[in-house]
Amino acid sequence: MNGAESLVQTLAHSGVDLCFTNPGTSEMHFVAALDRLPGVRCVLGLFEGVCTGAADGYWRMARQPAATLLHLGPGLGNGWANLHNARKARSGILNIVGDHALEHLRFESPLKSDLDGVAGSVSHWVRHARSAAEVGADAAAAVAATRDGALGCIATLALPADTAWGAGGVPQRAPAAPPAAPVAGEAVDAAARTLRALGSRAVLLLGAGGSASEAALHAAAAIAAATGCRVLAEFYNPRMPGGRGRPRIERLPYAGDAARQKLSGAEVLVLAGSVEPIGFFAYPGKASQLKPEGCALQTLATPQQDVPAALQALAEALQAPSAPHADPAPLGVPSGPLTPESIAAAIAAALPAQAVVVDEAVTTGRGFGPAMAAAAPHDWLQGMGGAIGYGLPCAVGAALGAPGRPVLTLEGDGSAMYTLQALWTMARESLPIGVVVFANRAYRILQGELQGVGARMSGPKAAAMLSLDHPALDWVALAKGQGVPGCRVDDAAALCDALKRGYAAGGPFLIEVPC
Amino acid sequence: MNGAESLVQTLAHSGVDLCFTNPGTSEMHFVAALDRLPGVRCVLGLFEGVCTGAADGYWRMARQPAATLLHLGPGLGNGWANLHNARKARSGILNIVGDHALEHLRFESPLKSDLDGVAGSVSHWVRHARSAAEVGADAAAAVAATRDGALGCIATLALPADTAWGAGGVPQRAPAAPPAAPVAGEAVDAAARTLRALGSRAVLLLGAGGSASEAALHAAAAIAAATGCRVLAEFYNPRMPGGRGRPRIERLPYAGDAARQKLSGAEVLVLAGSVEPIGFFAYPGKASQLKPEGCALQTLATPQQDVPAALQALAEALQAPSAPHADPAPLGVPSGPLTPESIAAAIAAALPAQAVVVDEAVTTGRGFGPAMAAAAPHDWLQGMGGAIGYGLPCAVGAALGAPGRPVLTLEGDGSAMYTLQALWTMARESLPIGVVVFANRAYRILQGELQGVGARMSGPKAAAMLSLDHPALDWVALAKGQGVPGCRVDDAAALCDALKRGYAAGGPFLIEVPC
Repeated sequence: MNGAESLVQTLAHSGVDLCFTNPGTSEMHFVAALDRLPGVRCVLGLFEGVCTGAADGYWRMARQPAATLLHLGPGLGNGWANLHNARKARSGILNIVGDHALEHLRFESPLKSDLDGVAGSVSHWVRHARSAAEVGADAAAAVAATRDGALGCIATLALPADTAWGAGGVPQRAPAAPPAAPVAGEAVDAAARTLRALGSRAVLLLGAGGSASEAALHAAAAIAAATGCRVLAEFYNPRMPGGRGRPRIERLPYAGDAARQKLSGAEVLVLAGSVEPIGFFAYPGKASQLKPEGCALQTLATPQQDVPAALQALAEALQAPSAPHADPAPLGVPSGPLTPESIAAAIAAALPAQAVVVDEAVTTGRGFGPAMAAAAPHDWLQGMGGAIGYGLPCAVGAALGAPGRPVLTLEGDGSAMYTLQALWTMARESLPIGVVVFANRAYRILQGELQGVGARMSGPKAAAMLSLDHPALDWVALAKGQGVPGCRVDDAAALCDALKRGYAAGGPFLIEVPC
Repeated sequence: MNGAESLVQTLAHSGVDLCFTNPGTSEMHFVAALDRLPGVRCVLGLFEGVCTGAADGYWRMARQPAATLLHLGPGLGNGWANLHNARKARSGILNIVGDHALEHLRFESPLKSDLDGVAGSVSHWVRHARSAAEVGADAAAAVAATRDGALGCIATLALPADTAWGAGGVPQRAPAAPPAAPVAGEAVDAAARTLRALGSRAVLLLGAGGSASEAALHAAAAIAAATGCRVLAEFYNPRMPGGRGRPRIERLPYAGDAARQKLSGAEVLVLAGSVEPIGFFAYPGKASQLKPEGCALQTLATPQQDVPAALQALAEALQAPSAPHADPAPLGVPSGPLTPESIAAAIAAALPAQAVVVDEAVTTGRGFGPAMAAAAPHDWLQGMGGAIGYGLPCAVGAALGAPGRPVLTLEGDGSAMYTLQALWTMARESLPIGVVVFANRAYRILQGELQGVGARMSGPKAAAMLSLDHPALDWVALAKGQGVPGCRVDDAAALCDALKRGYAAGGPFLIEVPC
């Protein structure tokens, strides 16, 4: 058994049964081993950012790490931005990066690069395999390194070609993931005292571990009803249940001033798997921190801990009954011209039950919350690291991580261009993914950010740098070019209808929405 | 004057008059300064790999560094692979990477990352600006750092937002680039003695600095004619003149066995700006080094030195007359079905004089050499770092770096997908770039590499990982989606005709060639 075969067997034995691949020459023995041995499904991406973003989406839905197969330093470089996003989402990913044979690394060949440097700048864990005999143990250690309590980590294993082709491989099995640490009763009791004492002057702030669990959202709503405290979620969440039957938990706004307003009057933030809220960017003359001056932080649960259990324990300590829940009125079929409201209504009305929504509609999607509360139950996934280009790849991984559930991806035209190669993988794997591209033909968010940072500009060079309208992108053509059927709609009823037809067809589809 | 304005003025004063931009919020003050002040042209890319690859192409033609404007760590990550390629081409590039305001970097905001780590893994020079007052001096130092003798370097300046918006900026001017160091007479005399003594048992090996200069190629041909030595160029070259009226210098083959065969019998390699030849990849049981055992290396000129002057001095020392030069017979209009030979003939026959050819036709283009020798005079640019996705961006930069010259880009379908966003910039800037995509619908090079590494595989998983035919990419649609007119051709005459019509129209165009 060679090193590559021991690696494949170790992955299969350790529950890593999916690999997003973009291989090259130095990975050929690993490709051959994947081919010969059962247990690991391979999905090809035509750009490495598709592979790493898909692994992020897969973790969010399956709570299991997927592997990526990348080609030396440049392959990892191409996947870097979506690894950054996954790192901020605390998704677990195992990167396997082929490298030159160890002997060959002495020389300055074209693909020689500072692989450990680029890997280390985005990974929690990096190892360079040294021999075929050790690759199995290296891989088992890498699988273990993809978890940190309730959170996931980025683990990168560099695989020199000779450690793959060399003989003497020994398959291993990674230890089972330990459960997330429970929260001590003292922290629960202290949080209960704070919330009872302060009522609406306290904010219970949910982070990723809490906002991803429907039970945790119900517990948080019950806690609010019993104590009068405010409940908020962080402004970006890796996964958040929403729609009918789920409590609607407001998110902290993206804009700093609005977030400060939302937190005003708070004397304590009780952190449930969250961290202190910080502005996305800094702005001249404004603080980075968003909480009111003098507002204290009290930790109920760290992000690594079992946040849902902590919230349920807190609800019990408060003897909080279930909160009364009233769904909004059912949605009618929208009609009329495309406006932010009618677009949101059409998307909400057409959404199938248990859909997964990947939100990268940078500006257009900000106001969708109220309409989505009336939609069928769904999960809402957001970009966590601020690097655009996460949406289409994330949808690929979400569809594979939640088989049988339809996926809807909301994209800005600017962000969709970064990793449009994901459309091809959607077509190749016949994934049930709808893509709605909001074609505002601009980096609209930057046009807004200009005022925020106080930069004065009115000239043609700046306008040209923030506008995408010359030439206009034709998303129906870009989808067709990759085997995805598409259409353009001009009013809300047509959008709703196109979505319903797309979901019914069962494969990928794209809708361009001018806005 | 704020820091951003001092940066723009420093660039303009230092001869950096072109910036490939993909900005975000943290770069808004720099964008505003570019807008207000004259002297720096901005070209927008919809993906950062387009910006960095374009800067590579620009250096190769203009021999001046362009700037890139990138958005924090992820923006640099997206540009990493083409910076790697540029680093191997020894192109000079000045990256300006926006970062959070210094105060904001204390916090773990979404876009916080190990920016210095990812920058350091691909740059020769990295600096993080610390105050608005120092930005001008930092920028001047960065411009100076883009040069190392005859070679270019990757310099990366991180620009925290507050150093851009802060007051007290002081524009500076980078010192003029020093000329490349001349070669000592002793090295020239020693090389002359070796070549005279060994004749065909010596190989004069040209590296980037020599192969890029028409005068150097003529000198090398004269040296060969006078001494009987063999002349070869490295297997990849950043820029190499070819076509009618230029000596045809053979390149070392890509495949290791063929390269070893080509060098067999050599007792000395005389290095003219080249380095010891090393295999692209390692293969089981084969050496990385390509020269015969016992073959000595003798340096005429290092890559940093003035290689063309060294070759001319060597020709003079050998009293070598100009070599007789006979062009191949003129090309007729090709006809018949598309074969490697007829494709090469059509491309060569249609090529306008002084065209710049960007070669990323990974497998299809390998045999084009003989036909191109009969084409009109041109420059031939190759990917230097082995990271595919360099071609379309490089063409953008080459067109801007060589105004008035038509550009032809030869692309594989696999490689073109990595950075297809470059097509949009070609359309936006109305650049005279023809793109020929060879649609073999496979990672054909990997299908060949399999045998080279001795990996056995025959199963469907491996076949699926190396094949792009399900679904087939429609390059005419992908071009149309970005505003570039395209067509598909079915025979050699149609290819030749489509090329001629495209060149005549003067803007970008794309031709899909099944093969």
